[in-house]
Amino acid sequence: MITSTPSPIRPGATLGIVGGGQLGRMIALAAANYGLKVHVYAPDADSPAFDVAAAHTVAAYEDAAALAAFAEACDVVTYEFENIPHATAAILAEHATVRPSAQALLTTQDRLVEKDFVNGLGIPTAPYRAVDTAQDLEAALADLGRPAILKTRRFGYDGKGQRSIREGDDAAAILAGFDGAPCILEGFVPFLREISVVAARGPDGAFAAYEPCENEHRDHILALTRVPAPGLDPATAAAAAAIARTIAEALDYVGVLAVELFEVEGAAGAARLVVNEIAPRVHNSGHWTTEGALTSQFAQTVRAVCGWPLGDTARTGGMAVEMENLIGDDSERWPALLAEAGAHLHLYGKAEARPGRKMGHVTRLIPLAAAD
Amino acid sequence: MITSTPSPIRPGATLGIVGGGQLGRMIALAAANYGLKVHVYAPDADSPAFDVAAAHTVAAYEDAAALAAFAEACDVVTYEFENIPHATAAILAEHATVRPSAQALLTTQDRLVEKDFVNGLGIPTAPYRAVDTAQDLEAALADLGRPAILKTRRFGYDGKGQRSIREGDDAAAILAGFDGAPCILEGFVPFLREISVVAARGPDGAFAAYEPCENEHRDHILALTRVPAPGLDPATAAAAAAIARTIAEALDYVGVLAVELFEVEGAAGAARLVVNEIAPRVHNSGHWTTEGALTSQFAQTVRAVCGWPLGDTARTGGMAVEMENLIGDDSERWPALLAEAGAHLHLYGKAEARPGRKMGHVTRLIPLAAAD
Repeated sequence: MITSTPSPIRPGATLGIVGGGQLGRMIALAAANYGLKVHVYAPDADSPAFDVAAAHTVAAYEDAAALAAFAEACDVVTYEFENIPHATAAILAEHATVRPSAQALLTTQDRLVEKDFVNGLGIPTAPYRAVDTAQDLEAALADLGRPAILKTRRFGYDGKGQRSIREGDDAAAILAGFDGAPCILEGFVPFLREISVVAARGPDGAFAAYEPCENEHRDHILALTRVPAPGLDPATAAAAAAIARTIAEALDYVGVLAVELFEVEGAAGAARLVVNEIAPRVHNSGHWTTEGALTSQFAQTVRAVCGWPLGDTARTGGMAVEMENLIGDDSERWPALLAEAGAHLHLYGKAEARPGRKMGHVTRLIPLAAAD
Repeated sequence: MITSTPSPIRPGATLGIVGGGQLGRMIALAAANYGLKVHVYAPDADSPAFDVAAAHTVAAYEDAAALAAFAEACDVVTYEFENIPHATAAILAEHATVRPSAQALLTTQDRLVEKDFVNGLGIPTAPYRAVDTAQDLEAALADLGRPAILKTRRFGYDGKGQRSIREGDDAAAILAGFDGAPCILEGFVPFLREISVVAARGPDGAFAAYEPCENEHRDHILALTRVPAPGLDPATAAAAAAIARTIAEALDYVGVLAVELFEVEGAAGAARLVVNEIAPRVHNSGHWTTEGALTSQFAQTVRAVCGWPLGDTARTGGMAVEMENLIGDDSERWPALLAEAGAHLHLYGKAEARPGRKMGHVTRLIPLAAAD
């Protein structure tokens, strides 16, 4: 493993990105803007990020030889998503500087490990129990009550790998549908809203958070992000940023991460906050930063993993920002969105608009008075 | 030649870019953001634009077979620079929709043809004479006086292909240094400042200009662009935009173009303006638009050549903008520029920082009051 802190990466060097979706694509675009070359590693030959990268490798995450060759060709390697096997990250780390670290991935790619970690920092999460068997589930439901949410410990996103268990539901049948995957039962949190903090930490410990944003979901998929989060009081916003910092420091994190939080009833500040999930990467709820902040979350990732100074996270011109996801057929609205004054359209270059698939997003900057 | 107006290009289609330098690279980045695939055609295997394109062709501009294959692979083709042979553009136009048209290139790639064209529209230029022989030059100097500037009719940029002729200079010897290239002698214009207008026109005739900016050169290379142009009166700014529109319409232009103008002594408005040069493409003096305007000149190029609605050209948050070129070793300042609050650094991914070579640029947004 490469353990020495490398000197800052120079423009002209090669940034490796593991994962070829829209997040990798937008990191690649930001890296190109800084004069870096990008090498993307992904198993799918149709990966959208390949189209904007100087080099790409199509290979499985289990292909040790391909991983080693890829890492050797890169000056620093980062991820666009956390659901790669730990062994993959370990192989990469033998051949290149990997940021965030394999250890940070290990902590955040498993819901049970992540919640233990967060609670260990004195930060509340939803109540939870590990569930491997029907007996575990029965005991967990007795403890946590219904409704509750059964989730796979790993590989879940956008509502995939999770099912609600309500009064009258056949819990054992629901568990059987998970095909023996290790699970976790999460108790219901009566939240007022979901917010998230996107933040960055550099190898020198520098930390910079964007303002918390408010997220609205539809069918378990992020639909709308607004910043500033309407009605979020300043003390709670500051507490949310402090939680993100505590987590980043405890992980000795290098790169951009997102912390999703529930705002609940309570006194202003940390008492109103419960951590839902940590994403060890750029996050959909940070897409507003491309036009809405002085430094985008993608540029910030590049800065952090290259050991460069973190950029300014302030909002552009003090404007309020709204980010709307384009899911499935939503992307067919592109002609109207191109014609809409002030709308910034992003499309990810995906060939097929399947239902539930993130195809693009649109960002709108709004004078603050009008947004209130 | 393809003469019918095609329906608008759809995201997912392929945009061809002829030329692989930083302008092509930045157009490619903008196109990717709209979900387009990009195919870059350039003779140099080290072209910076290749690194951000889904496909590229390395071939000479005279390679008819390669040009035809490239054009067939594209849904629409544009240029990053005007100095390609007319035959090249003609071959491309046989196989693809080419925007701007080969005719617009023909008019703007030759200083003599361009000046005849501009004067024909009733718009003043510097006085000029065609120069092919020492006798032509002698007669031209007698007409226009000294100092005057001898330029090649084609292939000049950044001060290349031009020489001043002052009192006492051996004009014939200077002409001999041009190796028989067709030339033009331009009379001296005592200008107050140089400004430029970057503007776009769509296939439907829609037109949108950015505000005129003021340009400062060092060693014949653009050093600094400021917008709004400090001290430029509104009537003259409006006249400059009107000149760009007249030119774009007379060329039946589709795409982004830049018109460089001299501001001279005279009554406010068109009387203060003399056209220096037309660039049928995105322009260095428009680089400020990436952060400084709601639509960048690169995104605007994509919108125009795809037949999409033109984007808003207003300045971001009403801020003043300054764009500084990084020439040669200037790019070694990257660590300081990354650390500078509010500085937006762009590097072009060029391997070698030769003197006079454009390596990157930096954009700063400044509250208007502070910029005055």
